[in-house]
Amino acid sequence: MTASKRNVYLKTIPLNEAVAKTQAALDRDLLLRSKMVPTHEAAGRVLSEAVFAEFSSPTFHSAAMDGIAVIAKETFTAREGAPLRLTKGVSYLPVNTGNPLPEGYDAVVMIEHVVSVDENTVEIETPAFPWQHVRRIGEDIVATELLFPQNQQISAYDIGALLSAGIWEVRVWEKVRVCIIPTGDEVLDFEKRPTPKPGQVIESNSQVLGAMARSLDCIVDRIPPVPDVPELLEQIVEEKLNSPYHVVIICAGSSAGSKDFTRSTIASLGDVIVHGVAAMPGKPSLLGVCKDKLVAGAPGYPVSAVICFEELLTPLISWISRKPVPARPVVEAELTRKVPSKLGIEEFLRLSVGKVGDKYVATPLARGAGCITTMSRAQGVGRIPPQAEGIDQNAVVHTELLVAEKRLDEVLVTVGSHDNTLDILSDELMGLDTPMRLASSHVGSMGGILAVKNGSCHMAGAHLFDPETKDYNFPFIEKYLPDTDLTLVNLAIRHQGFIVPKGNPKNISSIEDLADGSIRFLNRQRGAGTRILFDYHLKQAGIKPSSVTGYDKEEFTHMAVAVNVLTGAADTGLGIYAAAKALDLDFVPLARERYDLIIPTAHLETPQIQSVLELLQSPTFKARIEALGGYETSLTGTIMKPGIGLGE
Amino acid sequence: MTASKRNVYLKTIPLNEAVAKTQAALDRDLLLRSKMVPTHEAAGRVLSEAVFAEFSSPTFHSAAMDGIAVIAKETFTAREGAPLRLTKGVSYLPVNTGNPLPEGYDAVVMIEHVVSVDENTVEIETPAFPWQHVRRIGEDIVATELLFPQNQQISAYDIGALLSAGIWEVRVWEKVRVCIIPTGDEVLDFEKRPTPKPGQVIESNSQVLGAMARSLDCIVDRIPPVPDVPELLEQIVEEKLNSPYHVVIICAGSSAGSKDFTRSTIASLGDVIVHGVAAMPGKPSLLGVCKDKLVAGAPGYPVSAVICFEELLTPLISWISRKPVPARPVVEAELTRKVPSKLGIEEFLRLSVGKVGDKYVATPLARGAGCITTMSRAQGVGRIPPQAEGIDQNAVVHTELLVAEKRLDEVLVTVGSHDNTLDILSDELMGLDTPMRLASSHVGSMGGILAVKNGSCHMAGAHLFDPETKDYNFPFIEKYLPDTDLTLVNLAIRHQGFIVPKGNPKNISSIEDLADGSIRFLNRQRGAGTRILFDYHLKQAGIKPSSVTGYDKEEFTHMAVAVNVLTGAADTGLGIYAAAKALDLDFVPLARERYDLIIPTAHLETPQIQSVLELLQSPTFKARIEALGGYETSLTGTIMKPGIGLGE
Repeated sequence: MTASKRNVYLKTIPLNEAVAKTQAALDRDLLLRSKMVPTHEAAGRVLSEAVFAEFSSPTFHSAAMDGIAVIAKETFTAREGAPLRLTKGVSYLPVNTGNPLPEGYDAVVMIEHVVSVDENTVEIETPAFPWQHVRRIGEDIVATELLFPQNQQISAYDIGALLSAGIWEVRVWEKVRVCIIPTGDEVLDFEKRPTPKPGQVIESNSQVLGAMARSLDCIVDRIPPVPDVPELLEQIVEEKLNSPYHVVIICAGSSAGSKDFTRSTIASLGDVIVHGVAAMPGKPSLLGVCKDKLVAGAPGYPVSAVICFEELLTPLISWISRKPVPARPVVEAELTRKVPSKLGIEEFLRLSVGKVGDKYVATPLARGAGCITTMSRAQGVGRIPPQAEGIDQNAVVHTELLVAEKRLDEVLVTVGSHDNTLDILSDELMGLDTPMRLASSHVGSMGGILAVKNGSCHMAGAHLFDPETKDYNFPFIEKYLPDTDLTLVNLAIRHQGFIVPKGNPKNISSIEDLADGSIRFLNRQRGAGTRILFDYHLKQAGIKPSSVTGYDKEEFTHMAVAVNVLTGAADTGLGIYAAAKALDLDFVPLARERYDLIIPTAHLETPQIQSVLELLQSPTFKARIEALGGYETSLTGTIMKPGIGLGE
Repeated sequence: MTASKRNVYLKTIPLNEAVAKTQAALDRDLLLRSKMVPTHEAAGRVLSEAVFAEFSSPTFHSAAMDGIAVIAKETFTAREGAPLRLTKGVSYLPVNTGNPLPEGYDAVVMIEHVVSVDENTVEIETPAFPWQHVRRIGEDIVATELLFPQNQQISAYDIGALLSAGIWEVRVWEKVRVCIIPTGDEVLDFEKRPTPKPGQVIESNSQVLGAMARSLDCIVDRIPPVPDVPELLEQIVEEKLNSPYHVVIICAGSSAGSKDFTRSTIASLGDVIVHGVAAMPGKPSLLGVCKDKLVAGAPGYPVSAVICFEELLTPLISWISRKPVPARPVVEAELTRKVPSKLGIEEFLRLSVGKVGDKYVATPLARGAGCITTMSRAQGVGRIPPQAEGIDQNAVVHTELLVAEKRLDEVLVTVGSHDNTLDILSDELMGLDTPMRLASSHVGSMGGILAVKNGSCHMAGAHLFDPETKDYNFPFIEKYLPDTDLTLVNLAIRHQGFIVPKGNPKNISSIEDLADGSIRFLNRQRGAGTRILFDYHLKQAGIKPSSVTGYDKEEFTHMAVAVNVLTGAADTGLGIYAAAKALDLDFVPLARERYDLIIPTAHLETPQIQSVLELLQSPTFKARIEALGGYETSLTGTIMKPGIGLGE
């Protein structure tokens, strides 16, 4: 079990080089065949050969308007006030849009310009010029002309053109068929709806990659997870290579772990082209060619697997299927905090992006490759190039959007303290007629105030208690944001206390119980209002932080604290009642506090903030907050002034 | 048959008002239900309710790296050059990525930083800090937290998050079910693969609208065309309204024609909400609500039907299905020619868009609502607002792209004379490793020279013969583009002559046969090289243009001239051999001429022009040109200099 005995990657190469090397090793003409499909089922398909029109469209001169067909040169005398009288069958004939122009006629007068005199007589007051309102033969399509070149992807519109030209079938490239093979002794088949035990994870990467492959119009099959038995894996991969798949993706196992058999499998069935790319996440990606087919090894971490697919497989599958690589819209956004990065590696940042005032702001989400929710929550992705050691706060980052740019107008950026009512707010916002998406970063109350200062959010959630004045938030705002015009609106009053296991086995009843170090406590991060509250109560009780076991262990949310208590990783932590209740834990109340939304007055009239203010007045919303337990809504939606405290 | 007897629309309303009125008349909560679907099949679906996590992810503290688990506080003495020795089972345990952290351990050291001493002993040279390379419980997902709010559209990533959180099924909004009913006595069912006679058209709008609806994830059915029998139409629409469809679209028949029964059908089964929108194309669109369902009448012209769908039905279907309206990327592009427009109507221009030098240029395509190929050939759509009377040449137009912005780098903009070899070039360009899309506007040779002058194309095709010098193109360039550095490359030498019906029934043998006016000639438009050539030969033969019957009738391409000859609309026209051959017509040679590509030298190194220059050297390309007949490739790909003439 040393470095030398493992599959340590020899060297990493840039992503574009990895793609190019694999293209050079693959013969796409051999890999993908063409086939005939009915034209009306061909939307999205790619033509494998040029298409020439069979018929012209229209195939005849036709009326382009409802009205009358006339002979242009006989109408030249018509004038306003001097109407020209025409006789049916002699100098005019009624026509509807699409009718063939009667023999001998060469223009159409719109019905709106025709005055009926009797059944066989009309008058017009304007002359017609030749071919007026006439669709001439071949106006749209001329028989035998090139309709579409090879490799054109057929749009909905193109189907109209093809059918109009009498093309009933077209030759297109086959769809790429992909087989996804999850591996690993530790992964559980999601189809069995398992409950994971420690050491086990639910297999889901195959479904993420599968959905991405289907969005490229691939046909995707997935087999149940294959255990870590190299002979078995090799046998199954070989079987799939002998089936009509173009691409085989082996999921997980491609990290450098001692149980990784993907590399050896590819090597024994063909050639490993790439092992290791200069990207993070995504570094342990594998690409190979076996039996003229593309075989990929996707890393086990979900975000690594996503990057592997999007940066390597998407361009390769697009190239095989002769489609343009899907391009994301791009905006330039200001990064809300500094992100350091490793030289020589292209790092992919998941970014929560919104428009605050006139600028786009991008907040980096957690960087761990294991957090698939960072992809879910991101509106965009940024790249730190290999030659950079990071990106500074407020630097502009080229942001590839995962949503249409227009959707960013519907993102409400909130930064600050975490609270469960924000989940309810988030859900209610999406139920509005014009839905709003809450993008919230949990960096504690002080973090929220700094974000307001930096102009990087629409609002900040804070519950900062000032022991001196016994007021909330205002003393901190006066100190850190003296020059900003702000409006504070209360979200709720909430109960903070000790989250303890069901039955309270350590019998915690007050903060004094933490004094002797026998209780394993779990703290919140610096700047969190809950930590400030804890420090205040410690001081009141005359307890030194250093005597509290676990004072230095930090979590970022109430729910994370509760989970640690649930699993026994800690005996208790300070948090809100809702977090204890959610996990069926017990709760020892310590204090009530005010949780406010700090809103720069400049943003008050934005649709984002207006939506929030509307919801704060909604009885349904208040009822949902009350139902969580541990909340009071007596101040909810009220504009706060200094000195109100808890409003009692 | 007068205006008053027809369905003349009473008034038109703006598109957004039409949508809002229809939303107000529809109850989407009544219309669309929710249903449970398996999570792994839910990509693209919209949640009808919030989803909260069942499990945390991970459910245990786990190793985030391959390496060894250690107890952080026991490693603080490790230093570079002063390695710390650890014993297996005492102070370290081997772990792979994903393994649970063994009881009592709280950090992981990466395998790359571990030196193996013997089977039970390792050394490290850096201390570990607590929780280093450890994924803690709930790092990604905390049980009971809000995963996604209601109305969230599920992405591929979201599927990973849902499965990781133990969510096997989700409640989503049903797919919108659409029934499309084509109507009209004159339309032919494309499924029968018909050959249209005059007055008949192949029904294709249902397939264009169907493909667009499927791209919104609707389930679409289409029935064969219904003849113009009002009772029958009403019966069929009622039957479909009683079936589980949410939306019924009646195609065609909604122009104000005398055979239009869509309006009366909707009125008899429910309410007409909108008839007539202030848009062109698309004006005769109808929207109604019958039996709580949405019923639309799409106009008969294909582009009108497209606008009706995209501007009215797309927002309505998106609203019903709680999805954001698909947004197109936007660029600002310079309009290459003036477009007048009617006040009070929003006009949709189909634009051929490319990047020439540093700017985007947009060339308006034909404006007829009957030309579906204008949608196929467009890279973008521009809107002329109702309050404008048009857009000036070189004005900037807000262009909604039909392709990703990045794809515009692959558009080769050519303006000028039409030639069939451009079709071959277009096809070959799309077969390159980096495909290029030829966007060509046919405005004649002089039009091409003016486009070069205006900086609105990468190259122009011209075959302008100068009678004085007997040279091609250079005398015109010297006159109109004296200050531009240009490179001329020959595309081909081609044969021009009289296109005549098979067997040459009028026995045309030379230009003199046109002198007595007995031959119905069809001319090309002013500025076309072919017209200049014709004028030269007329003058040489001493024939006055006014004595040639049809001298004033103009077509814009060789193929259009040939089609007119084929259908008997003209006895002959001047054109290239390839056009005659394509339609199996006969050809009476008149002259050989040079067709060159005029390339601003500044564009010579662009990928677009480099692709062309590469192809002009390709024997395959030359062979395809020769195979057309009527072309010589002796000069193809050669840089032209003044005075070369035909190179003989």
